[in-house]
Amino acid sequence: MTPSSTQRVSIVGGSGYVGGELLRYLIPHPSVEVVQVTSESNAGKPVRTLHPQLRGWSDLRFSAMAELEPCDLLILALPHGEAASRIDAFSALAPRIIDCSADFRLGDASVYESTYGAPHAAPDWLARFQYGLPEAHRGALTEAAHVSGVGCNATASNLALLPLARAGVLDPAMPAIVDLKVGSSEAGRRATAGSHHPERSGVARSFAPTGHRHVAEVRQVTGIRNVDLSVTSVEMVRGVLATAHVWLKEPLTDRALWSIYRESYGSDPFVRIVHDRGGAYRHPEPRLVAGTNHGDVGWELAADGRRLVALAAIDNLGKGAAGTAVQCLNLMAGFDEAAGLRSISLHPA
Amino acid sequence: MTPSSTQRVSIVGGSGYVGGELLRYLIPHPSVEVVQVTSESNAGKPVRTLHPQLRGWSDLRFSAMAELEPCDLLILALPHGEAASRIDAFSALAPRIIDCSADFRLGDASVYESTYGAPHAAPDWLARFQYGLPEAHRGALTEAAHVSGVGCNATASNLALLPLARAGVLDPAMPAIVDLKVGSSEAGRRATAGSHHPERSGVARSFAPTGHRHVAEVRQVTGIRNVDLSVTSVEMVRGVLATAHVWLKEPLTDRALWSIYRESYGSDPFVRIVHDRGGAYRHPEPRLVAGTNHGDVGWELAADGRRLVALAAIDNLGKGAAGTAVQCLNLMAGFDEAAGLRSISLHPA
Amino acid sequence: MTPSSTQRVSIVGGSGYVGGELLRYLIPHPSVEVVQVTSESNAGKPVRTLHPQLRGWSDLRFSAMAELEPCDLLILALPHGEAASRIDAFSALAPRIIDCSADFRLGDASVYESTYGAPHAAPDWLARFQYGLPEAHRGALTEAAHVSGVGCNATASNLALLPLARAGVLDPAMPAIVDLKVGSSEAGRRATAGSHHPERSGVARSFAPTGHRHVAEVRQVTGIRNVDLSVTSVEMVRGVLATAHVWLKEPLTDRALWSIYRESYGSDPFVRIVHDRGGAYRHPEPRLVAGTNHGDVGWELAADGRRLVALAAIDNLGKGAAGTAVQCLNLMAGFDEAAGLRSISLHPA
Amino acid sequence: MTPSSTQRVSIVGGSGYVGGELLRYLIPHPSVEVVQVTSESNAGKPVRTLHPQLRGWSDLRFSAMAELEPCDLLILALPHGEAASRIDAFSALAPRIIDCSADFRLGDASVYESTYGAPHAAPDWLARFQYGLPEAHRGALTEAAHVSGVGCNATASNLALLPLARAGVLDPAMPAIVDLKVGSSEAGRRATAGSHHPERSGVARSFAPTGHRHVAEVRQVTGIRNVDLSVTSVEMVRGVLATAHVWLKEPLTDRALWSIYRESYGSDPFVRIVHDRGGAYRHPEPRLVAGTNHGDVGWELAADGRRLVALAAIDNLGKGAAGTAVQCLNLMAGFDEAAGLRSISLHPA
Repeated sequence: MTPSSTQRVSIVGGSGYVGGELLRYLIPHPSVEVVQVTSESNAGKPVRTLHPQLRGWSDLRFSAMAELEPCDLLILALPHGEAASRIDAFSALAPRIIDCSADFRLGDASVYESTYGAPHAAPDWLARFQYGLPEAHRGALTEAAHVSGVGCNATASNLALLPLARAGVLDPAMPAIVDLKVGSSEAGRRATAGSHHPERSGVARSFAPTGHRHVAEVRQVTGIRNVDLSVTSVEMVRGVLATAHVWLKEPLTDRALWSIYRESYGSDPFVRIVHDRGGAYRHPEPRLVAGTNHGDVGWELAADGRRLVALAAIDNLGKGAAGTAVQCLNLMAGFDEAAGLRSISLHPA
Repeated sequence: MTPSSTQRVSIVGGSGYVGGELLRYLIPHPSVEVVQVTSESNAGKPVRTLHPQLRGWSDLRFSAMAELEPCDLLILALPHGEAASRIDAFSALAPRIIDCSADFRLGDASVYESTYGAPHAAPDWLARFQYGLPEAHRGALTEAAHVSGVGCNATASNLALLPLARAGVLDPAMPAIVDLKVGSSEAGRRATAGSHHPERSGVARSFAPTGHRHVAEVRQVTGIRNVDLSVTSVEMVRGVLATAHVWLKEPLTDRALWSIYRESYGSDPFVRIVHDRGGAYRHPEPRLVAGTNHGDVGWELAADGRRLVALAAIDNLGKGAAGTAVQCLNLMAGFDEAAGLRSISLHPA
Repeated sequence: MTPSSTQRVSIVGGSGYVGGELLRYLIPHPSVEVVQVTSESNAGKPVRTLHPQLRGWSDLRFSAMAELEPCDLLILALPHGEAASRIDAFSALAPRIIDCSADFRLGDASVYESTYGAPHAAPDWLARFQYGLPEAHRGALTEAAHVSGVGCNATASNLALLPLARAGVLDPAMPAIVDLKVGSSEAGRRATAGSHHPERSGVARSFAPTGHRHVAEVRQVTGIRNVDLSVTSVEMVRGVLATAHVWLKEPLTDRALWSIYRESYGSDPFVRIVHDRGGAYRHPEPRLVAGTNHGDVGWELAADGRRLVALAAIDNLGKGAAGTAVQCLNLMAGFDEAAGLRSISLHPA
Repeated sequence: MTPSSTQRVSIVGGSGYVGGELLRYLIPHPSVEVVQVTSESNAGKPVRTLHPQLRGWSDLRFSAMAELEPCDLLILALPHGEAASRIDAFSALAPRIIDCSADFRLGDASVYESTYGAPHAAPDWLARFQYGLPEAHRGALTEAAHVSGVGCNATASNLALLPLARAGVLDPAMPAIVDLKVGSSEAGRRATAGSHHPERSGVARSFAPTGHRHVAEVRQVTGIRNVDLSVTSVEMVRGVLATAHVWLKEPLTDRALWSIYRESYGSDPFVRIVHDRGGAYRHPEPRLVAGTNHGDVGWELAADGRRLVALAAIDNLGKGAAGTAVQCLNLMAGFDEAAGLRSISLHPA
């Protein structure tokens, strides 16, 4: 599309962690002006009250949703279910919408219903939303007006599996089990008994040993039918490590896997292939992508050449949510895909 | 007093972290039978529902307070204020009471009021309670029927300062500032916005830079008037490190300080003097007392022989609460003072 | 065997973390006297220099190996390879030996060689050592004079898988992938670039995505041929969580799995079945076994009744090393199997 | 000075954490070209080998010091002592030098000797170096050719105390005790027994209870004579929290302190005054400056109006080392003072 001039962007539901991360990326974004940020329960308060990292960076205050004005692009960061139930109203406010919730991620209303346990509130809109994973749908995103954000666990899984699925090398008779290690910010800002620091600190907790619901997004994006996700909460705040246990239909060499991953990510602005011969950082590591939009992918091939562990590390709030949303915004608006998103992670951290 | 036979003990308000720690010490205690544990909101549930460490160790279920039966000794682990308002009823149930709250720690009702911001609900009872720090009041505790538990930050401070106060070596013209580093379990079990793992993780947070209210207990125990406590929350679950900045009225040698500390703690069953010449563990360290009733004390003397940093490390739930309460129980009942309390901490941990 | 009187025990190679944990269990053990503890580089120093948790608990000093005297039972906690190369000398010193290293874990010298990359130094001794997992070999251990300790990752895996293997319910055509989350103490006491706190802190690091060598112990104990272990290092010091992805040959109910696990562990003194309907602690959790000899096992069955995730949590230094060694000592000596090993974990911690 | 064109910068001793952080700031810096980075033991290796955060960001390889070529500005990040012993050689290579070590921080050679325990190797150079704290010496830095970096603990202390010292409100008869809570990256990259993750994890360790040597920098910058620093290591990788216990010569109001702090920092590009009425983030917090060049300062005044706790939080690798060095570079070169240094911290993190 034709490059846009500065986009006037408002964030609906900006009090959560994804909202904060969107602001962290968008406030210094060279081609974006953040116009409004809503939070019903915090309307009138400075955004830095809830997002203390913005102290000195923004004088914005939260608005109520009822005060929303028309703008170029709306980003919805509402609890699951709320975007779908108000999508007509939101679409009247802006020609472009990015929804960070799960509401418009699945193209099939029946899959949505079996995954989320309730009928979809606006099934007609499903076909109008493009799933927003640039690594899978870059072309379509440059043309899209309505884009769905991505699930964090789905994204780590998809980045690890997509090259293998595209190359057609997975054994269809075997399962694909993605064992995910995740940080505490995945559960959002609301304090619960389980998120209380003395209870959550230092755990290796089986959160969803089988059937994490992001599996539907992985099936949709990769086409792998017999995939399952297994989620364990570990001691970190940000980060997802996906350890995908898969089997190849024929033995491959390490060199062949390099080709397969390069084919998908060789020129990607954010996905790095991490597959060194040695060193503590020879595999993808969530700490090294924390605070960035990077997705690091790698693998280890067993001696038999058929058992393969595909690895991916992302920041659940970055590449797994807000970073990818901003990357989609850039594609939708015709900006440099990486505008506002370039940053080097901290090490040590 | 004459050694008692087994004590039948009930815990009132046993759903919190102090309640859980009392159970951890008392269930295997050789001379205690835990009869009832109350929790209004959890009555009927197994105690392991809230205290998962007790799985396989106890089939006890929570009772409602109204179901309390007479017993030998009641331990109150209620929110501050509740023990005082019901003390007559509790005293009708048991000849001996240990109250872990702040209600009966201060002997002077006016100091209580200025510290806790409300008049005391049962001022007549104040004189009937003995402050329960064995290192300061061992003799009185063997005769006491009503004993108050201790504040965790007060206890770390008192263990560090008591030998100096007793020896009369502190300069009365100078302040005594106890800079405390504390873990998240100090704030109890209730989840709050500030205790949410993503918010509390990895902090060094100035919780009470001046005037933490445990200072009243330190004044009462040590007699040091111009003492103040300053509390910083750091990344740990259990533990208090007290760094007490004090000044001596005359220069002392390191050897003299050894004598002063040995005088107070040379034969104490739980206080260890930690003052090595080198090594990572040359000073007291909260991790090395976690899960135990140990209080480790040490010091570093500045080159001028007058500026002194006195150090103490405790487990806030152990020596700072439940451990000391059980130690008091042992003294009150005529048991071996260390009964049920001997354990070696984990290292590494 | 006939119950022994007090055993005089010496520890060879006692400066490491397993050595420290052995001392933590054996110093207060009611029927054990620790006679000597060796460390070549620390001979003459108090054991508390390296094991600061023992301050106030033991005045033992390290001896050199050359100073070892005959005793009732030797526990070897040497680096892998050293026990095998000196086994004749050690056997001359004591009629009973427990070796905590990997040297005598595998009954087949060729499996040892393919696993550890070198021929075994004393293959004739392999048949004389009994693998020391009480849950698998309790009977044999009561008769054994020479017992091998267990691998920590193997033990977590074996506890999760053993009931399923015994029941014969696993689909032999499908893989068994044990995805292990492990703490930093697994790598022992030696500081390395990768264990440096700023580098190791907060990681989710793919340590051995495929083929961790403990797999040989799992094959030997469970008989499952197509099992593989995948190890990820996470932010904890102690602890292993095994997430075993397996498939049943026929669909089973949750009730059937209860029976299968109860059959193996219903009367076990240390293995707890953790499989609640809800709550943060519904599955096994390494923090809740830290510092204990407990092994907690559980599972989650997928909706199809065939995909199963079997779970186990242990303390790598406890049930995964020193705890199990002491349990074997108890069985070998005819003591109460749980002597010296009973303790409730900390919560919160 | 006249604004420079792009500066060609080389880093001497670039394998450590300060070296890595300099690269993180300088590689994307709009007016800097990093020409060479030296490391004797890593010469020839890609810088990302040691600084994995730079993967995909830089193809630089380490050079040996002997290969250094002339450039516009040298930044020295060598172990303490090495800059002074080679300063003549370095000055022949570049007209401008920034030294991050302690070698040129103290203007007085006798103070250097008493602080660091050895005579200074190049005392004539001391007067030629400007101490590089922009908040104290901004004007001089714009004219300086040779600038010394700052100590991290000194910087946190100086930022907290400087406004009070300048305003002349401190009671000269009273001490000023800065109790510092610091992260593990302060000790640099070299793995030691004490930095081993199982030993360092979760500690609150009295590293230097009295007399930390950065005190000399605090005396020099603030002019406060009876100041002392006390350092405790806590569980974080990056970060310093300074809790400065001071006394005012006359009681002040909170409003007066606002004026005093605004006077020093009202227009500073990186120092933020953090002094809210409530909320978890009402005081400075190291996590909220991690990865940035921000220094956050605040205070709490006791009820008597005289006891004051002044607070400051910095990232030891950022504002406490590399960030401030780059800020000095910007001032020396006539660039925008904040060039390459603007970034919003992560929250949660």
